Amino acid sequence: MAARAGIVVTGTEVLTGIIRDRNGPWLSERLREVGVDPAHIVIVGDRPEDMLAALRFMAEEGLDLIVTSGGLGPTADDMTAEVVARFSGREMVLDPELEKRIWAILEPLLARWPGLDPAALRESNRKQAIVPVGATVLEPVGTAPGLVVPPASDEGPTVVVLPGPPRELQPMWEDALRTDALRTAISGATEYRGAILRMFGIPESEIAASLRAIEEDGVPIERLEITTCLRRGEIELATRWEPPDEDVYRDFEARIRERHADTLFSDDGATIDEQVAGLLAGPPARTVAVAESCTGGLMTARLTERPGSSAYVLGGVTAYSDAAKRDLAGVPWELIERHGAVSPEVAAALAQGAIARFGADVGVAITGIAGPGGGSQEKPVGWVCFHVAERGGASIARALQLPGGRADVRDRSTTVTMHLLRRLLRGEYDAPVTPGAHARA
Amino acid sequence: MAARAGIVVTGTEVLTGIIRDRNGPWLSERLREVGVDPAHIVIVGDRPEDMLAALRFMAEEGLDLIVTSGGLGPTADDMTAEVVARFSGREMVLDPELEKRIWAILEPLLARWPGLDPAALRESNRKQAIVPVGATVLEPVGTAPGLVVPPASDEGPTVVVLPGPPRELQPMWEDALRTDALRTAISGATEYRGAILRMFGIPESEIAASLRAIEEDGVPIERLEITTCLRRGEIELATRWEPPDEDVYRDFEARIRERHADTLFSDDGATIDEQVAGLLAGPPARTVAVAESCTGGLMTARLTERPGSSAYVLGGVTAYSDAAKRDLAGVPWELIERHGAVSPEVAAALAQGAIARFGADVGVAITGIAGPGGGSQEKPVGWVCFHVAERGGASIARALQLPGGRADVRDRSTTVTMHLLRRLLRGEYDAPVTPGAHARA
Repeated sequence: MAARAGIVVTGTEVLTGIIRDRNGPWLSERLREVGVDPAHIVIVGDRPEDMLAALRFMAEEGLDLIVTSGGLGPTADDMTAEVVARFSGREMVLDPELEKRIWAILEPLLARWPGLDPAALRESNRKQAIVPVGATVLEPVGTAPGLVVPPASDEGPTVVVLPGPPRELQPMWEDALRTDALRTAISGATEYRGAILRMFGIPESEIAASLRAIEEDGVPIERLEITTCLRRGEIELATRWEPPDEDVYRDFEARIRERHADTLFSDDGATIDEQVAGLLAGPPARTVAVAESCTGGLMTARLTERPGSSAYVLGGVTAYSDAAKRDLAGVPWELIERHGAVSPEVAAALAQGAIARFGADVGVAITGIAGPGGGSQEKPVGWVCFHVAERGGASIARALQLPGGRADVRDRSTTVTMHLLRRLLRGEYDAPVTPGAHARA
Repeated sequence: MAARAGIVVTGTEVLTGIIRDRNGPWLSERLREVGVDPAHIVIVGDRPEDMLAALRFMAEEGLDLIVTSGGLGPTADDMTAEVVARFSGREMVLDPELEKRIWAILEPLLARWPGLDPAALRESNRKQAIVPVGATVLEPVGTAPGLVVPPASDEGPTVVVLPGPPRELQPMWEDALRTDALRTAISGATEYRGAILRMFGIPESEIAASLRAIEEDGVPIERLEITTCLRRGEIELATRWEPPDEDVYRDFEARIRERHADTLFSDDGATIDEQVAGLLAGPPARTVAVAESCTGGLMTARLTERPGSSAYVLGGVTAYSDAAKRDLAGVPWELIERHGAVSPEVAAALAQGAIARFGADVGVAITGIAGPGGGSQEKPVGWVCFHVAERGGASIARALQLPGGRADVRDRSTTVTMHLLRRLLRGEYDAPVTPGAHARA
């Protein structure tokens, strides 16, 4: 069985939701890479007893390793090293050599900030140099040293103590991996292989049904670790297995491919955004322009999120008012009057307008009712018309009823459009896009 | 002492960092609002024993309340309701009425997606209608019902069980707050008052200095719970206090106002987005249009995020290519050639172009270098030019060096623009916008 680890993230501002924790998920991914299973991520405030309780909980769970982030600063409420020493049954002692090395980092600050109080600086210097006996010190990237603390008895987990700032924590984790103390703690780690399949346009329940069916066909999928997750209207099937089960996974993947050929769009971890960017970059290289309404600029923003996107994104028009649809996207007024601003006809005209106004190879258009207002009997909130077209060439049109609130409808609409754009760029003009995944998202 | 709560977030995809948890921090803030202190947030995977261990840990810690998110889906690995039933010592039973209500939600989907397997749907319907005896059911926003589960004996915490998708979890939390079961569980909650002051354009260190100075002036601010945080380039000073300390807070707030009059923009919790929306809605009502480059549509998307924004947002142009700046925003070609696409001159022309092309009362323009490429000696990555103007009237221009990566520069640029827009709409034409908050962000 694989080694298991817990992660303890400290900091009241993280616990209370003021600051978003980036270390827990990052450490979790790193642990899996070295074959250690994360069992729990616990976020605690600055109360030492809460942190101690979390450490003891993880020890009771029989975890082999605990990684902590934060609480190594110079101030009095930074107590992680002390709490971990108590937990591991070790004394705290001053490491004079470490104190000198930290001072070498701090001293230059005195020159830079005249305001700084040298005495206070000395004090925090000293505090940060007091470490548990027998711990392996990780050299500071900022001013705080990290620690690898084995249990005093051979019982219990080894604790890796890292500072809170990600730019300090991340390199220091790499250092920790090179210590004998950590190597010993995770010696039981298993080697894993992994793969991610991404699907678009089916509800999660269909995947659940496939998993049941494949299991009933006698494929021992219980030997695979399969995680299904719904993200922005797409289904992600992430699987992890041990090398001896390679064939089981291959068989499983082949059956998923067969059952979901029409909706499987990625088998190498590539996201839809990466695929569309690659297709536009070419060869053949193609430029794209957007004319959008209910998405209010989000479609263009999504296409320009990637560095270097200026090579293929010419720009976009957010034609929120009808006059803007006419004047900036060249939609004939009669079309709007006859079919309404939210209609397949206007979507098509917007796409052609984007191509014409920006001189783009490909035009992308979205017009819909994001809500909460503006819905009607025949065009309710969530009704969105999509159109993607090549200049003087093929096009794909869709009209879908999307679920959720204003933000969901806006975001889902960009996901649908990315998939229509991918199909257009791949020349898959008649592949279906069912609202399935969106209706359930 | 205030009631204390724990939050258990379930899902292997969250534990392993595949998707980011938004529920833990959100629930943590909501709990504090009702006077309950969050003690731990625990993230667990789909292993039932790991979740059960987390619940028992929180019970041992003597917490009054536990809120769980996720694990209510149709698939076999969604076991939260069952685990909570075991934890609370309650049987699971089918609620036939609930099964009917869920089916009423699911049945229409069958018509919508021909591909769907009715048997699979029935099965997930039934699974989601099996609930612990004596639990209060929270009606589904999606398809999964939530639960409020009191302990079978009077010992131990009450557990609120909510689905994982934030758009389902958030309204269902509000429903949970109205249940007697939850009211009883948090009856011990302390009454708190709270206020939020928002500032823009100063570094966090200046707030720290003000807090020290106010304390030295003898204001007992240790009786207030003050949290400072930097969010999207703004400083948020959130304070919580118990009713007897009302005067302490009033004194504190008055001194903050006095010290930071020039940068304090909100004292009633209103965000900059809400203020700008209110100013545009009027009276006097004014329409706005955007011409943006490096923000790639994010500025227009931010202005259209709010329901009803179509009343004052006419639209926007993302002029990513130089040709688009000329053809769609009417920027004279000579300007681009003489000063470059990223220049105060082109920013001004973009703002005038937005006014002219959309017929707007107010024009908003952003052009800059988001990076990572495209920087130069005199125009490095992060250099952004802003211009907001009234038709035929006043205008405010800024050019700032923003810190961070591509995403930071794009997002910060929209925040700076919102503040410039606010000042233009309030007629504060010469109020300074220092890059302070951004340079420190």
